[in-house]
This record gives sequence, C-alpha cells and structure tokens, in this order.
Amino acid sequence: MLSLGFDIGGTTVKAGVLDEELKLIVKESRETPKQDAEALCDMIKQMADELSGGAKEFRCIGVTVPGSVDKDGGIIDAWNIGLRNVPLKRMIESRIKAERVIVKNDADAACDAELHFGVLRGVKYGLMLTLGTGVGGSIIFDGKLFHGGREQGTELGHAMINRGGDLCGCGHRGCIETLCSASALKRLAQKACEEKRGMIWSLASNGADPDAKLLIDCAMQGDEYAQELFEGYTDVLADAIASFVNILDPEVIVIGGGVSGAGDFLLDKLRVKVPPRTFFGSCGRILKASAGNDAGVLGAVI
Amino acid sequence: MLSLGFDIGGTTVKAGVLDEELKLIVKESRETPKQDAEALCDMIKQMADELSGGAKEFRCIGVTVPGSVDKDGGIIDAWNIGLRNVPLKRMIESRIKAERVIVKNDADAACDAELHFGVLRGVKYGLMLTLGTGVGGSIIFDGKLFHGGREQGTELGHAMINRGGDLCGCGHRGCIETLCSASALKRLAQKACEEKRGMIWSLASNGADPDAKLLIDCAMQGDEYAQELFEGYTDVLADAIASFVNILDPEVIVIGGGVSGAGDFLLDKLRVKVPPRTFFGSCGRILKASAGNDAGVLGAVI
Repeated sequence: MLSLGFDIGGTTVKAGVLDEELKLIVKESRETPKQDAEALCDMIKQMADELSGGAKEFRCIGVTVPGSVDKDGGIIDAWNIGLRNVPLKRMIESRIKAERVIVKNDADAACDAELHFGVLRGVKYGLMLTLGTGVGGSIIFDGKLFHGGREQGTELGHAMINRGGDLCGCGHRGCIETLCSASALKRLAQKACEEKRGMIWSLASNGADPDAKLLIDCAMQGDEYAQELFEGYTDVLADAIASFVNILDPEVIVIGGGVSGAGDFLLDKLRVKVPPRTFFGSCGRILKASAGNDAGVLGAVI
Repeated sequence: MLSLGFDIGGTTVKAGVLDEELKLIVKESRETPKQDAEALCDMIKQMADELSGGAKEFRCIGVTVPGSVDKDGGIIDAWNIGLRNVPLKRMIESRIKAERVIVKNDADAACDAELHFGVLRGVKYGLMLTLGTGVGGSIIFDGKLFHGGREQGTELGHAMINRGGDLCGCGHRGCIETLCSASALKRLAQKACEEKRGMIWSLASNGADPDAKLLIDCAMQGDEYAQELFEGYTDVLADAIASFVNILDPEVIVIGGGVSGAGDFLLDKLRVKVPPRTFFGSCGRILKASAGNDAGVLGAVI
C-alpha cells in the first residue's frame, strides 16, 4: 500500500507519494488555501485521489502543519495559514481511508526526516532550526523527538531574543522568528530596494523578486551592501543559536528550511560566530539539513 | 558516617552536616574567599574538621558552585567567585577522605533537593529558576536532572532575552540574568535611592540596605514606586519564563533563590502574567521552591 505525505507551508502544499520502502515516487505542489480548513482537507483528498491513481486505501496519510499541534492531531494555532483550533486529523480521517493518519508540526516532520534518513541519525541530544517563512524548531532528547513537556510541541522560533522588538505573527514581540526567518531576510532585501542600494536593488528593478534568495545570491556574488545585510542577519542568528546552546548544549545543531540553501556560505559564518557567543565558549557541530525540500513530505509519514 | 554539604555562593559559603538519613544536624556560614581555589579548599577542609567534631572519614562531601561544572567535577567558569578551570573535585579529594566527593552547579543542587524532598517529586518535565546573585536554572527531563547535551550543565540565566542590552557578568549582553536576578532588583532599589523616591529611599536613608529584599518589602507594604519597579521586574521575569515555556513547555515551573522569598506576592503575579505571553496561551504550574535556604546544602550530597 502507498503512503502520502503533505507538507503544508505558508505558500504551497507539497505532496508526495511514497512506496512501501518510503521512497518518494511522485511529487506535486499546489497553492495553500488560507483560513479554510474544509477547503484544505478537500484539496488533500483530491490530491490523494489524483496522485495515487485512485487508490481506495493508504498505509499512511501524513500531514505537516506550520504551527502547533495537539496530541490528538488537531491544530492549536497555525497563524501562517490562518487556522486555529481545527481537528485536522479527524477531518482527514472522515475523507480518506488509511491505516494511520498523522498530523504533525512541520519542523518536527523535518526533524523526523533527519533522524531517520539524515544528519541526526544516532544523535542523542540535538537541535534543529527550520528557517523558512517562519522559524520552526525541534529538540532531540535521548535520541527521540521531544514533543514538549505538555505534548503541545516546541516553538523555538517564539523564544524571545529581542525584548520590546518587532511584532511577531504570533502576537508577541521580539521572537527569534522576527529576526531569523527567511521573511526577515526578505524584509532586508526590500529595504535595499527602498533605499535603491546595491545589486539587490538593481536586480530587483530588472524584475527579480526581492526575497531571501536574492539577498543571499547577491552577498555570495560579492555585493558589499548585500554582504553587510547578511552579516547582520547571521549575527542575530548566531545569538539565537548561542542562546539555545546555553539552555540545552546540543551535540549537533541542524539548520534547515529555505535559508539553509545558502549552505556553507551561511554555515561557515555560524561556525565562527556561535562559539564565542556561548557561555561555554564552544558548541556542538553545526550541520546543514540533508533531507532538503522533501524533508516535510518524508517526515510527515514517519 | 556523616555527610557534609557546602553551598558556595557569591557572598557566603553555607555548610551543613547531615546524618545517615540525610537530616541536617549542624549548620554554619562563612564568607566566600574570592579568586583563590586553594583558600576555598582549605576553608572547606577546616569547616569539615570543626563541624564534624574531627571525623576522619565522610560518606559524602558535596560542594555546589555558582557556575558551570564539567563531568569530572571541575569548575569550567564561576565568574561570581572569580574561579575558572579549577579541578575542584580533585583538590577536595586530596584534602578530605570521603566515599564520594561531588561537585555540582548550585542551581542543579537546588533542583536535586526539590526532586528528592520538594515540589519536583514525581514530575517528568520541569524547569527551575534560582533567582539569586545570578540566575541559575535547571531542566528536569524524563524525571531526571538534565546535565546538558555535552555534560556541561545548563545555563538558563544566560539565555538571551534582551539583545544589545546590559552587559552580563558572563561577558555577553542581554542575558536573562541581567534583568531577572536579585542583583537586578537591587539595582532598581539603588535607582530609587539615587532618585530619592518613595519608601525605599526613606528607609535606606535611615540605614536599611537598598537591596532586593527592601524593594520587595516596600512593594508589599503598598509603596507605589516600589510596586511600579516590582511590576517592571515581574514583567521581564514573566517574559523569560514564557520564552522557556515556548521552548520546553514544562509541567511545573519552580522559582527558587532569594527572590522567591517574596512567595505568593511574586508567584501570583507570574501566574497571571506568564500564560498570555506564551505561544500556547497557557503554561504549567508555577510553584515556589520548598527546600528553602538549605536547598544547596541538601542538594549537594544527593
């Protein structure tokens, strides 16, 4: 029997069909319906039908959500897609026949993918930060994904780092997410455009999207202003990671999500900046997530 | 055979003699020698001789340190008492005969005391903050004290909450310790004296020490300015606790250290202020440490 993984992001829903050995055999993306749980579940049902060629039953339907999930697979809060207090697992079970339906936090799914297929295999104490539209985070404790002391998940992106700072989507101020997400990099790129400065502005005026990727590309190509903005970004990110090191001191720190696409250009800076900012003067290994773009789809069904 | 617990603080060393059932039978305090590990160990040896009535051997010598401790019982960094990279356990073993010598972080000792004798008994996921000269912190994971992923302890007081803020004793800026310690409250009391405002100033001009306790006493007695300062303090402390809730979501949050002496006057404010500041809109139970002033001495020998 086939399994299906759905990775619901702030912008797109990625779906994947997996065979008995959890190998990804078909993929597709669609736009995420916002603030409408019924429409989301209907789309999941439709994609399951189409991608599986009309299978009547599945081994597992796994769905990741960009927000907090309770132990019954209900969404507590996923402000990114405008859903709150939605019994998502039950709604999917009423539409699709499957041996197991799993609903989990997207960062947890990415972390599960690393634990099973990637750089967290065999790690006892680890931390993973997923730098995308928001900042997701997961904790590996005793070799297993930690779901929070009250089983509501962990929200590392909403640890406070900058008291009294910018308003976060969660309604509070100064969360790590406000400064370390891909959206924070995008705001920096937009600032460069407003100021009409550097390569970011000149490429954007020629039609390029002023987003995180453009900023990183310009910095990699040696543009001074883009490099300055990226240094500022990695300074905050290093502070955030150092803060987690002081709290948990993980053996391995994994960076995932869109921003991790910058690879060693990002990671080498963190490897230099994080250790002196910690209480201990050192930190565990800093690694890039290895499951890539399919992490959510793979991790959803584990 | 007797056991001896030594609780080394920034100001005083508290020592206690414990019988076979770990009941505290004798106590004494002396001034902490600073920046001198030899003097500290000599004093421990002398107190052991005197308090035990000249016992030749002990069941356990337990020592708590206000700083980070490595897995061999060496001090990594205890800036409060001016010691860094000191093989404290070995130095004590060379002076005193005991079946076991234990050197541990002071917050961990306080937490061990709560786990064995106090409010953390039976708790699976807990967090304890010790609000004293500095801010110590411990994490209970799966019913046990967590020593950090690389066995260097956990330094919750040095999680960053106020990026770019005041310089902390650890050398970094914006640590929770800079805003939530008893020393932070003392600085507020001193500010009131400089400004010549309210009951704090009038009592201090009559000889009272302008410290955390004076500020809390004045606030409890209804002095408006002291209450305003204490509200500001509890706002930051609530932010710090909410941040830990977002990361770990413990079932129980224990407040210990000198500031916890304020009891429900402090805790009731936290119980109101913390939940709305969390991502989840709720938090675990907030309790006062129950082992009191002897927590360090008791927890040292466990």
